[in-house]
Formats: sequence, C-alpha cells, structure tokens
Amino acid sequence: MTPILLNADMGESYGPWVMGLDHEVMPHVDLANVACGFHASDPDVIRMTVRLAKRHGVRVGAHPAYPDLVGFGRRSLACSSEEVENLVLYQLGALHGMCRGEGVEVSYVKPHGALYNDMARDPEIMTAVMRAILAFDPALPLMTMATRDTAAARALAEAEGVALWFEAFADRAYDGEGRLVSRRETGAVHHDQAVIVDQARRIATGQPLTARDGSELVLAADTLCVHGDNPESIAAVRAIRQALDEIEAGS
Amino acid sequence: MTPILLNADMGESYGPWVMGLDHEVMPHVDLANVACGFHASDPDVIRMTVRLAKRHGVRVGAHPAYPDLVGFGRRSLACSSEEVENLVLYQLGALHGMCRGEGVEVSYVKPHGALYNDMARDPEIMTAVMRAILAFDPALPLMTMATRDTAAARALAEAEGVALWFEAFADRAYDGEGRLVSRRETGAVHHDQAVIVDQARRIATGQPLTARDGSELVLAADTLCVHGDNPESIAAVRAIRQALDEIEAGS
Amino acid sequence: MTPILLNADMGESYGPWVMGLDHEVMPHVDLANVACGFHASDPDVIRMTVRLAKRHGVRVGAHPAYPDLVGFGRRSLACSSEEVENLVLYQLGALHGMCRGEGVEVSYVKPHGALYNDMARDPEIMTAVMRAILAFDPALPLMTMATRDTAAARALAEAEGVALWFEAFADRAYDGEGRLVSRRETGAVHHDQAVIVDQARRIATGQPLTARDGSELVLAADTLCVHGDNPESIAAVRAIRQALDEIEAGS
Amino acid sequence: MTPILLNADMGESYGPWVMGLDHEVMPHVDLANVACGFHASDPDVIRMTVRLAKRHGVRVGAHPAYPDLVGFGRRSLACSSEEVENLVLYQLGALHGMCRGEGVEVSYVKPHGALYNDMARDPEIMTAVMRAILAFDPALPLMTMATRDTAAARALAEAEGVALWFEAFADRAYDGEGRLVSRRETGAVHHDQAVIVDQARRIATGQPLTARDGSELVLAADTLCVHGDNPESIAAVRAIRQALDEIEAGS
Repeated sequence: MTPILLNADMGESYGPWVMGLDHEVMPHVDLANVACGFHASDPDVIRMTVRLAKRHGVRVGAHPAYPDLVGFGRRSLACSSEEVENLVLYQLGALHGMCRGEGVEVSYVKPHGALYNDMARDPEIMTAVMRAILAFDPALPLMTMATRDTAAARALAEAEGVALWFEAFADRAYDGEGRLVSRRETGAVHHDQAVIVDQARRIATGQPLTARDGSELVLAADTLCVHGDNPESIAAVRAIRQALDEIEAGS
Repeated sequence: MTPILLNADMGESYGPWVMGLDHEVMPHVDLANVACGFHASDPDVIRMTVRLAKRHGVRVGAHPAYPDLVGFGRRSLACSSEEVENLVLYQLGALHGMCRGEGVEVSYVKPHGALYNDMARDPEIMTAVMRAILAFDPALPLMTMATRDTAAARALAEAEGVALWFEAFADRAYDGEGRLVSRRETGAVHHDQAVIVDQARRIATGQPLTARDGSELVLAADTLCVHGDNPESIAAVRAIRQALDEIEAGS
Repeated sequence: MTPILLNADMGESYGPWVMGLDHEVMPHVDLANVACGFHASDPDVIRMTVRLAKRHGVRVGAHPAYPDLVGFGRRSLACSSEEVENLVLYQLGALHGMCRGEGVEVSYVKPHGALYNDMARDPEIMTAVMRAILAFDPALPLMTMATRDTAAARALAEAEGVALWFEAFADRAYDGEGRLVSRRETGAVHHDQAVIVDQARRIATGQPLTARDGSELVLAADTLCVHGDNPESIAAVRAIRQALDEIEAGS
Repeated sequence: MTPILLNADMGESYGPWVMGLDHEVMPHVDLANVACGFHASDPDVIRMTVRLAKRHGVRVGAHPAYPDLVGFGRRSLACSSEEVENLVLYQLGALHGMCRGEGVEVSYVKPHGALYNDMARDPEIMTAVMRAILAFDPALPLMTMATRDTAAARALAEAEGVALWFEAFADRAYDGEGRLVSRRETGAVHHDQAVIVDQARRIATGQPLTARDGSELVLAADTLCVHGDNPESIAAVRAIRQALDEIEAGS
C-alpha cells in the first residue's frame, strides 16, 4: 500500500502581506502546493517558498488559479477553455522558472480555489487544465477531489493521458456523494483534533467515513490536504503526520 | 562574418487591445522579443505569438520588464537586485511554459524599456538580469546596447559567464559615446527610409556611422532592432531585410 | 415626447493601448459611458475623455465593471453583492474625482459587460449596483436593457428609489422576449446601415421591431447605444444622429 | 497652541491579506490615512476602514500611492507630473466615493511611501500632488515632512494655494537637516517607549530634539505619525496619546 501523502498550500504571501505559517508546516508535509502569482505569491515569495521546500525535501507542485488577486482566486471567472489552458500553462512555466533557480522540479499540478472547484464539476475545464499539463510535461499528475464515484474523472484522465492524484480532507465533513459539505453549513469543518486525526487515519487506510447522510463513504485518496494557517492547524498537521507514521511503521 | 540578425518586439497586445503588426513583421525578422506579461501580453497573446514565430522559423526571446502594464514598462521602478533577478526569472519561466505548448525553445533574453535602459547604466541591475539567466539556462545570450565602448559590459558578462548580443538601431541617431540621442531631441529618429537602410547596411558591415558630434562611430553589433508598429516601419523592415540579403549574397 | 439619447462607451484605451475612435464619435452622442479603470481606462485616459466630453457638451456617465482588465470586464466574476456594491462605488468615486478636475459632473451609471448582463438577470446584483448609486448620489439614473417586459426592473428600481434609463440597440437583433440575440448566432448583428437606421428610428418613435420569432416588439427606450469602434460604426452613428434630428425637427 | 494631531496609516489590508491592527489603533488617533487601492486596500477594505474611522470620530485622509501593490508603493516609479496629478486625483475620488457610502468627508491628503518621499525632494512632484488637490477640493491640506527648513515647501504651497500639515515622527532619529535617518543605519528607529514618548512630547511642545549630528532640532509639526503594526506600537500609541492629553490638560 502506497503511503498517503500530505499536501499543503504554500507561498500565499504577496508583496508585504504574509499569509500562512509556511516555515512551520513545511517540515511535516510531502507536497507543497505553491501559488504562482495569479491568486497569491510573487516572484520573491515563490523563490523563498521553493527554497524552503527544497531544504525540507518536500516536492513542489504548481497551484495555478484564475487571475484574481483581490479575490484570492476564490471567485469563479467565466473563462473559455483556451484561456484556462493558457493561464495554467503560463503559471506552470513561471513556477518552473523559479524552481530552476533552486535546482528543483515541478512535480504535480493542483488548481486553486474556484478553478479547482470549477474543474471538478466541468469536464471542459478539467480538459483545459489537462491540456496545459500535457503541453508542459505529460508526466505531471493532476490533483483533484476524491469523491464517492470518480469514474468520470478517471475516464477523462485516461482519454487525455494524464495521471490523477485524488485528494481528501481530514478536517471536513462529506455528503453522501463524497463531496465536501459547504462551509456555510454547521458541522462542515471539524475542529476537534481527535476527530481530524481519526478521519485522516481512516482515509489513509481505506476505512470508511460516515457521510453527512449516514452512509458509509470510502475515499480512495492519494493525498490528504492539510493547512498551515494558524497554530491550531499546525498542531493538527503534526498529529496527522504522527498518526500516518505509526500506520506506516505498523504496516 | 556572421550575418547580423533582425529582432523586433512582439506580442505586445494585451487582452482586447492590439498593438503592433506582428503578422506583417514576423516573416522578415530572425528574432522575436516576446513580451512576458509584465509590461504587455497575456497567456493567450504569448501563445499566439510563439505559434506565429514558429511558423516563420523565427527564434523566440524573452522580453521581460518591470511590472508596470499601464506604463508599458517604460518607467523606471526602484527594484532591489534580488527583485530584478526574480522578476526576470519568473517571466523567463512563464514564456518558456508557453513555448513548450508550441514545441519551441526560448533562445535569448532582451529586457524591455526601462529595465533595458537601467541595466545598461547600472552594473548591479545587469548582474541581477544575468543571474536570472544563469539560474534558468546559462546558454541564453543577453541582448544589450551596442555603444562605442562596451568593455565594461563585456567584462561583467565574462565574469558572470553570460554571452552578450549587442544590439544597434538603424532608425536612431547616436551621440558621440554611441548612445541613442533622446527622442525628445529633434533628429533623434530617422524617418527617411534611405537613411535607415544606409545605417543598417553600415552597421551590418562594420562601417562607421557619423555620430551626432560629428565623430565616426563603429558599432560592433550582433543584431539590429526593427519595428512592426505601422505600415511605414514594416516597409523599412522589408527594405532592411533586402539590403542585408544582398550583403550576404555578395559576401 | 422626450427625444431618445445616444450613448457610447468611451475611454476604453489603457496605458499605451488605444481603443475606439472617441474623438470621432463624441461630437454625435449625448452620453459618454466612461470606463473607470477596472476593465479599461486609467487616470490619464479618464481625464482626457472627460475633457473631450466636456468640450462637446456630452454628459459623462460611469461605466463600472468587474476587476478584469485582461478580460475587458466581459467575463462574469462570482462576486458577493457587497463586493459589487463597493466596487461600483469605488469606480463611481474615481470617475467623479477625475470629473472634478474638469469641472464636470457624473450624470448616470451604466455597468459594463458581464456586470451589465449579470445585473439584468440577477436582482441581487442589480440591487447591489443600486445601493452604490444611492450611497453616492441618489439622483443618478441607472442604465439597463430595454426588454419586452421591464416590470421587474421597474419594481426593483421603485423599491430602492433609483431612476432607470432603458437602453436599446439599433444594430442588434432581438428575440421574442426583447433580449439581444447572442452574437454567436447568425444575423445577431446588423451590418446594413439602412437596417440600423430604420431600427433606430422605430425605437425612437415607439414603433415596433420585428423580433427573431416574428412577433412585434415595442421597446420603451430612453437611450440608444452606438459604437465608435471603427469607421463603419462612426458612419452609422452619423446616420442615426441625422435620422433622430429629422424626427425631432418633424415632431 | 493647537494640539498636535496623531495620524496613522490604515486600511492597508488587501483582499484576503490583513495588515495592521486598525481596530486597536483607531480609538487613539485623530487622523486615519486610508490607502486608496494603489499600494494597498480594496473597495471592501476601504469601506470598512472608513466606517471604523467614523465610529471613533477620526478624520479620514487620502493616502494615495504609486500603482505598485506588490511593492506596497515603497519603490519610486518614474512618473510624469501629469501622471502623478491624475493618479492622485483618481485615488482621492475613489476614497471620496467610499466615504460617501458612510456619510464621511475626506479631510486631507498624505501621499504614501515612495510618492511621499519623492514629493519631499522634488518640487515638480509636490506641485503635481497639489494640482490634484486643487482639482478635487482646494480646502484639503497636504501632509508632508517637517524638516529643519521648510521654507521651500511653504513657498510652493503658498504659490499653489494649498495648505500644508507638517508631520513628525516620535520613533525615528533625525539628521542635522531634520530628515529621517535611513532605516538601514543603526539607531534609526527608536524602540524604547520612554524615548518615543519623550520625543513625542518635545515635538508637541516645540522643544528641540537632538539630531544625529548633535545639533538641536526644532520641528514645527502639526501632526505626529504613529503606527498600528503590532502590540508594541499600539502600546506606544497609547502612551503618546496619554502624554499629549496631559500636555493639553496642563496647558
């Protein structure tokens, strides 16, 4: 069984504005999703983030987004598929350039925010993202949501020739289809560290979660998304890392 | 004798705004300086421009600039050398990404506007640009102004291990130091096509120009900058191209 | 009968990029919709445009948009209503500032592109735009699409206390509901000047158009949108102006 | 004797990025310098900041800057004086628009960062800023550095018909000319609260400071700049406020 990888969004500072405790979360993750300048980050921030990832042996992934700094890439923007392909390719290349400055490779692609969500619900957008990956480097996996039924995404990925990495969340409630319960609903986000670690452990070992509708939900996930926003989330990351290490040691 | 190369700024449209007759100038040049999104261009424009260059067998160069769209990169911005290095590296990478989408390589770097001028007068900025090149691909030449005395630039380039391509202008008057006469002065820009072609021919064959102060000026140039702004400049490019072809055929 | 007013989008240049023949269209219109910097225009362009409008006695309106320069404000951006209210208010104020520099008043508000369309189909967005107007100056009319049935928009406007100006198009085909036929369909845009002038005359005099579905369509319009994009559209504006002047002289 | 006013930079958050403890510093100051969107702030942030200022009875001033978000307006940008005039006017208007939403007036103008410094050393830039003020509202004072000799600035202000407010700093060392010692030099910034409060008291009462070169320096200041960056600076603001209140009570 391949151990599940921990990924976190990184490099989301911008100019004078600092976001995230990158230095504290980096030692505990496997994958750093580095913002590429469209929703966050700038050339200096990217460079420092890539350097930090390298120091900790963490793989760097591109975290491209719609061009919407003030909205942090969280607002859907009605782009054509050609626009999506090109803006992802541009951001991939830009991050690749900064990585060359540190002797590092871009290892995967995880779209950010609204682009991530739009891609998950619209095959045309997912195809556009895949075309950017194929243009840049067909070996790069694309990270997308693990849901109950991933057949459509897998079929699309197979047709295009792009590998998928499915991502799950330890701190979020799931609905019956294996989608995240909206943050606007109560109980959507877990705050109890024991609950979070238990969910991480279940996902990592292929055991079912209990979805919001009471059904059992097995998520086939390659990676878990963790957060470096604040001291509480750093504590959760440490606890998840320890739980995963114990699973791996025991297996 | 290596034939002199013609270079032109390209891909300077932005979103809905069109600039330059790229389709008309591309067939006549050797090198396309492609804007990278900081002073002009966007991912879609870059992609189309690279595709056009490829179709005509024209080599693509990065044309990075200060981040100043509204000022078109023509206004000096007091960046630190680290900022210059990183913003050039970012733009180089971004263009490289778009080039991968078309199976093309970035072949050289020509800073744009105020960055080009600041680099020519400030060795710290030139070094910063060179470091970006070294980080990305040490084989890429850096294009800079041919002046009367290029010893300082050559010494810097040798110390850093970066190749230089010296650039001259067929349509601009030069002062005694081999610098361009400011556009604010009368006679700074040649409009007579015969004068332009004669100056191109002299530069291409190593014959002296007459500087503004009456002195003879020999510019050792690898490339001539031409313009695709309007029908007149396209006509001048065609005439220069023909003159250069005749020189080459005769040599 | 109040004569119908001609309005045109203006000040859509940006930095070095020129768009539109503002100098040629300005003498023939009553209302200049001036871009406010979010989809086009910059402080220098706005100032020049306001000055030009003043010289021709043309009233200035704010033409606010989503923050999307590269997409020219044509792409829907999923903003909250609070975001819409504030971004419209910001742009209104910015234009007002430039107008003060020329001793001119902002006279009305016409949202641009995707914001105009989103407002027409979503009462929450229209309300947000109205709140910006009420915050700035409750006397400013809001320009919106004339359709077959404008009861909903009028009810909303009455409830909020904002005046509406209904806008029609002389060069576009209408469907049975009085909405514009999508540009993607053939026949959506009229190119024959006689057809355009006839449609303008019908709208100005309250005579019915023939909608795409064959039905008669009467549009109660306060203003006609005309375009200064190119010599053909300038010619159409002149012809429409002349037709309207004849109507007015005859009435 | 007019009591000295405390001013602080506010509204320097941007989109998702928070900067400054505006809620904690607002109750202690007289003047809020509100960023206008070019170096920081966005329409939502401006609105909230103006609302906060109103709640505490704090006057709102415009804090316009060069268009350089990523550089936070701290880098000189080689703008023409016409560009400076228009970009200040645009920002003034935009802030005014947001203020109308809260029933508040813009009360003064304090340029930010590099624009503030460039204005202090270049009369052409100061004149451009003054022209923006005159265009918008000639009654608005312009805040600028108090130095040993302010004759030139006062002459310029008188010639243009703009009032000046001179600003001093309680936490910065001064050189013999009454200019701030560069932050790059040791001792440039005071960290000892007793030193800061003493300097504030001296400035407020017209007593001399000791400049870096040992000379006595009297700064005729209308306002003191304070900072809401972190808990230490908030504590310093409270202490300065208390000291000023004691002076006023005793006078």
